[in-house]
Amino acid sequence: MDHLKAAIRTIPDYPKPGIQFRDVTTLLGDAGAFRAAVDAMVHPFAGKKIDCVAGIEARGFILGGAVAHQLSVGFVPVRKKGKLPYRTIGQSYELEYGVDEVEIHVDAVRPGERVLIVDDLIATGGTAEAAIRLLRQAGAEIVGCSFVIDLPDLGGARRLEALDVAVTSLVSFEGD
Amino acid sequence: MDHLKAAIRTIPDYPKPGIQFRDVTTLLGDAGAFRAAVDAMVHPFAGKKIDCVAGIEARGFILGGAVAHQLSVGFVPVRKKGKLPYRTIGQSYELEYGVDEVEIHVDAVRPGERVLIVDDLIATGGTAEAAIRLLRQAGAEIVGCSFVIDLPDLGGARRLEALDVAVTSLVSFEGD
Repeated sequence: MDHLKAAIRTIPDYPKPGIQFRDVTTLLGDAGAFRAAVDAMVHPFAGKKIDCVAGIEARGFILGGAVAHQLSVGFVPVRKKGKLPYRTIGQSYELEYGVDEVEIHVDAVRPGERVLIVDDLIATGGTAEAAIRLLRQAGAEIVGCSFVIDLPDLGGARRLEALDVAVTSLVSFEGD
Repeated sequence: MDHLKAAIRTIPDYPKPGIQFRDVTTLLGDAGAFRAAVDAMVHPFAGKKIDCVAGIEARGFILGGAVAHQLSVGFVPVRKKGKLPYRTIGQSYELEYGVDEVEIHVDAVRPGERVLIVDDLIATGGTAEAAIRLLRQAGAEIVGCSFVIDLPDLGGARRLEALDVAVTSLVSFEGD
């Protein structure tokens, strides 16, 4: 996955000093890297039944839309609070300072539907954990979580695996 | 396109009384309708050279990600102000009350690149016009704008055609 890692731009000291921001837009803008990333994101789940893809707002919408198209399944948006027009269920999660919340429509999945969760990056895993809990509350079975980037020092993948979810990522940046 | 129209949910009086909100999430969640929509969105541009797809935040990310994957090209996010991590250029546009702004990275497109703009819905066309101006400022040629839903009473398609851009949509809701 070195060619994918090379397609990710690092922005030093963003959004604050000391943070190395991993900018996936350069990968998305590269036709070959984008397609290779989508292929690699679904590959670990080959042969598994997947009924729909849930993408986490906002960059998870881009990758999730492409992954859903690749798999010929539907797409479920996991959105920030207050963005969905119909009746919703929500799940809050802790940020470094404060609390945030994600929502899905009450009818976003049918009970027993098998869902693959997609996002660009896993850091602490707080948002992804909230998405897992929310989709399970709606009756979904989580097939797995597929990310482009893992920041393993922040422990997000272990946190999701503790919820009995398969977690895969394409590239890893240590020391973040 | 009647089957696509039937897959769109109408939410009365959202976000305020008198507005019929056209909710595309029910279409996105339906595997057959999602794939049919993506196919139909690229069909008018068959045989035209397209170098990348620009999707407008946030629902345009889902459809744009899928359309870019369908065309095997890269994806450029057109984001709300302050969301992109690298150096940006911006373009403001008028809302019913006030002004908003969209941004792209300064290096999002190369001069001469041929871009297809994707979003779920065209109403007044303000955001799409800002996206067109911004991408042209960056040197792109706009191949066209492709929407799922047109609200023709609001005149957005005519507004974009006046900028010499091809505009297509799959379904139309009049009287909105």
